[in-house]
Amino acid sequence: MELVSSSKAFGGQQRVYRHDSSACACPMNFAVFLPPQAEVGPVPVLWYLSGLTCTHQNAMDKGEYRAAAAANGVAIICPDTSPRGEGVPDEPENWQFGSGAGFYLDATQAPYATNYRMESYIRDELPALVARELPLDMSRQGIFGHSMGGHGAITLALKNPGRYASVSAFAPITQPSTAGWSRPAFEKYLGPDEAAWRAYDATLLIADGHRVPDLLVDQGTADGFLQEGLRPQLLELACTTAGIPLTLTMREGYDHSYNFVSTFMAQHIAWHAERLIPA
Amino acid sequence: MELVSSSKAFGGQQRVYRHDSSACACPMNFAVFLPPQAEVGPVPVLWYLSGLTCTHQNAMDKGEYRAAAAANGVAIICPDTSPRGEGVPDEPENWQFGSGAGFYLDATQAPYATNYRMESYIRDELPALVARELPLDMSRQGIFGHSMGGHGAITLALKNPGRYASVSAFAPITQPSTAGWSRPAFEKYLGPDEAAWRAYDATLLIADGHRVPDLLVDQGTADGFLQEGLRPQLLELACTTAGIPLTLTMREGYDHSYNFVSTFMAQHIAWHAERLIPA
Repeated sequence: MELVSSSKAFGGQQRVYRHDSSACACPMNFAVFLPPQAEVGPVPVLWYLSGLTCTHQNAMDKGEYRAAAAANGVAIICPDTSPRGEGVPDEPENWQFGSGAGFYLDATQAPYATNYRMESYIRDELPALVARELPLDMSRQGIFGHSMGGHGAITLALKNPGRYASVSAFAPITQPSTAGWSRPAFEKYLGPDEAAWRAYDATLLIADGHRVPDLLVDQGTADGFLQEGLRPQLLELACTTAGIPLTLTMREGYDHSYNFVSTFMAQHIAWHAERLIPA
Repeated sequence: MELVSSSKAFGGQQRVYRHDSSACACPMNFAVFLPPQAEVGPVPVLWYLSGLTCTHQNAMDKGEYRAAAAANGVAIICPDTSPRGEGVPDEPENWQFGSGAGFYLDATQAPYATNYRMESYIRDELPALVARELPLDMSRQGIFGHSMGGHGAITLALKNPGRYASVSAFAPITQPSTAGWSRPAFEKYLGPDEAAWRAYDATLLIADGHRVPDLLVDQGTADGFLQEGLRPQLLELACTTAGIPLTLTMREGYDHSYNFVSTFMAQHIAWHAERLIPA
């Protein structure tokens, strides 16, 4: 992997790397913040998955995660949200599909199945790469994300028990298989048989018996996507039914932007640190 | 003034406004963060001046000032760095002059003198506007900035005793009248007579008897502009000679980016709050 940039921040290093992804069959960028503790030994890893239209850069610029990551001694990795580039099929005018909208799944349908394999990329390829190249303790991983990335974080945690010691989300898409902004994408990536969609839907994964130890979710009440696209009540019902301890907090007056995410970033990182770092 | 956007953050409101500036003879944008304390009464104001190439948006996105501003109950205003627009003379290929490079001075030379009046804008027009429209206590103002904006903050504080109770800077341009990246701009804005430049040079203003009560400066040692463009030792010499208490800290390994600024943002806001808010 190639170092694109490195800049000291909060005693650590905010870096961007580029590498050729075999999962996505294209070059991919990711951001990683190494806290100062990484200079003396491997540190826990917190995966941050971004939302629709984002790249590796949005949370790096606006997420305000470095102060809390440095204070808690955890690395933060921000992958891209989709494959990109000239050879990658896309719908440039559609912000809910293609570039910036990988939905953290492995597409099965032509022409998308060659590149749109974000689940394999986030779950297998990128962890193996950073485990070889960076001072990370891969036995201590957590995952969180925003909106589409909240969906990605929760579904990956549900499907890979033991992999992630902690999971949280900001304004996650809770039931993409029934939401208007994700159904067309799921159909193009996964085909018309909705049975295949269940593996990428947090509420249905829970209904099908998948579990996480506990879950932290924050959601703004002034979020324009709340009622149609996000619907935290569906996740709450699923967790209650399954007996998953969910800490869901509705945040009065907050919208869907990074002004919301950054406000609660330190609390989420503290939640993960409690679960990743022995007292 | 017209509200462009408003978004809740850290209990307060991050807003962007647009207004027709008479000083700059064009529409101007500025960002303002109102802390939660502004809901119950007027709050102190901290002016943040940005560096070359920036708009009102850079510090808003990357400065990470909201947590500390909310904790201390101060508003943060981020003006633009120059006039802009079709009728404004500019050198689009030159990042050190024209748009994004107003240098916080009032130009005297044609064709720039009509629009490039950032000193009058920051000192007179914008404070009068926000005093009328926002819950701000204008008897408690501080000023700080980054790079070209550090130059702006220090020179404005030196020239307006009593106006700003506190002043600080991140990696300021300390002696623009002798630095390669500012001399051509000063000549175009102010003319070839360098005597006119002294009013916009922190070290020369101090030599000419202007004073501030004290001054906080942070500077990264890995800043690529350190030796040629910034030169904190010149400010240190001027302050020592004049007896101005300067707290200058060289920050090992930090560069010129917002990774540096954001790392020390909370410490600067705390410095201002100590001087703006009675114990």
